[in-house]
Amino acid sequence: MSTELQQLQAELRQFAQDREWDQFHSPKNLATALSIEAAELLEHFQWLTEEQSRTLPRDRLDQVGEEIADVLLYLAQLSDKLGIDPIEAAKRKLLRNAEKYPIDRSKGSSKKYTEL
Amino acid sequence: MSTELQQLQAELRQFAQDREWDQFHSPKNLATALSIEAAELLEHFQWLTEEQSRTLPRDRLDQVGEEIADVLLYLAQLSDKLGIDPIEAAKRKLLRNAEKYPIDRSKGSSKKYTEL
Amino acid sequence: MSTELQQLQAELRQFAQDREWDQFHSPKNLATALSIEAAELLEHFQWLTEEQSRTLPRDRLDQVGEEIADVLLYLAQLSDKLGIDPIEAAKRKLLRNAEKYPIDRSKGSSKKYTEL
Amino acid sequence: MSTELQQLQAELRQFAQDREWDQFHSPKNLATALSIEAAELLEHFQWLTEEQSRTLPRDRLDQVGEEIADVLLYLAQLSDKLGIDPIEAAKRKLLRNAEKYPIDRSKGSSKKYTEL
Repeated sequence: MSTELQQLQAELRQFAQDREWDQFHSPKNLATALSIEAAELLEHFQWLTEEQSRTLPRDRLDQVGEEIADVLLYLAQLSDKLGIDPIEAAKRKLLRNAEKYPIDRSKGSSKKYTEL
Repeated sequence: MSTELQQLQAELRQFAQDREWDQFHSPKNLATALSIEAAELLEHFQWLTEEQSRTLPRDRLDQVGEEIADVLLYLAQLSDKLGIDPIEAAKRKLLRNAEKYPIDRSKGSSKKYTEL
Repeated sequence: MSTELQQLQAELRQFAQDREWDQFHSPKNLATALSIEAAELLEHFQWLTEEQSRTLPRDRLDQVGEEIADVLLYLAQLSDKLGIDPIEAAKRKLLRNAEKYPIDRSKGSSKKYTEL
Repeated sequence: MSTELQQLQAELRQFAQDREWDQFHSPKNLATALSIEAAELLEHFQWLTEEQSRTLPRDRLDQVGEEIADVLLYLAQLSDKLGIDPIEAAKRKLLRNAEKYPIDRSKGSSKKYTEL
């Protein structure tokens, strides 16, 4: 796993332990928190056109960065609780996606692999 | 940034480029995809008790790992598009959280900092 | 359709028209807004135990009511745009669910019908 | 409340009782299920342009109708559990929104009321 992600997880473990938050941090609750933060991230884009979303002003970009941070913090904690290495899982998934979406059939298409 | 996360981003950039998917990958769409994957992750826990969520059977754990991967893949792509370093953003947020949730006032409490 | 829901839709149509908001109210954007409001609703429950969620204090209940309202308002607008009658769709779905979850096989089980 | 929505709630109450599902239907779990269904609804739009989302083909529209049904079914159940009348709550919210978004200041703008 990424040494930096592992370090983040260690810091989060200490953070939760210092505050006796493990009682609240069941995987179920962490997955819930993650999905709520993902929605807060999405909120910044909801009324923008796709084009506008490509050129965010600086202050909006900072706010988006904070929400990205929140998502990653919960993802790191949830993975840590479950003993899952997210970087390794992502690499494996990327390989599977390469099989599900062969270049020649998926080029320029946004169709799901089940519809290709 | 994490070298491994950067490498993942580079691979994802190539993956999308090979398939001419950049046209679909506006930050708005990537944030939408991320929140949908977060919900698919949450789906695995929705009818479990918190206790059950702490002891997932192996096959369920594998499925959860795939969803964690999907969330991270979209997080990596969105961050890449926006020029945001998620690890750095997470570290900054953790420092801010330490200020918002001082140990003595937040110990054993699940209250939001605005209610402490 | 429920006369009251139809009336709500008519009021929302006027509300959006008065403010020239139709340009923002594509089905895609309305579905996004709905999912964000659903997350804000969920936020009220995220750190509660299931038991605590069954006995919300009055002020929390009022806040939850506001989020339920937001979800329904977007659901009404989205349905209106798409020409879908949500009450009729719900009745049909309930019939289908009765087939997918026969009483004898689903009693006391939280399994998905594909796993029954 | 809408007679038809009340009737739906009564049917759902019976449905859950027949299957002994009340044990799973804590408000926390119902709010989680609602947000997951909202994400499944959003999934149908995620790679479409806003324009495409305004002209869905018939089969896609049917699938969207099913997800709208799922959202409404959980909204009805959650409201029922909490003793909240969603139609009344929506009407009150609409009045509040009219105050927060006066026509002259919000016309043609997608800004949040706090930024108007």
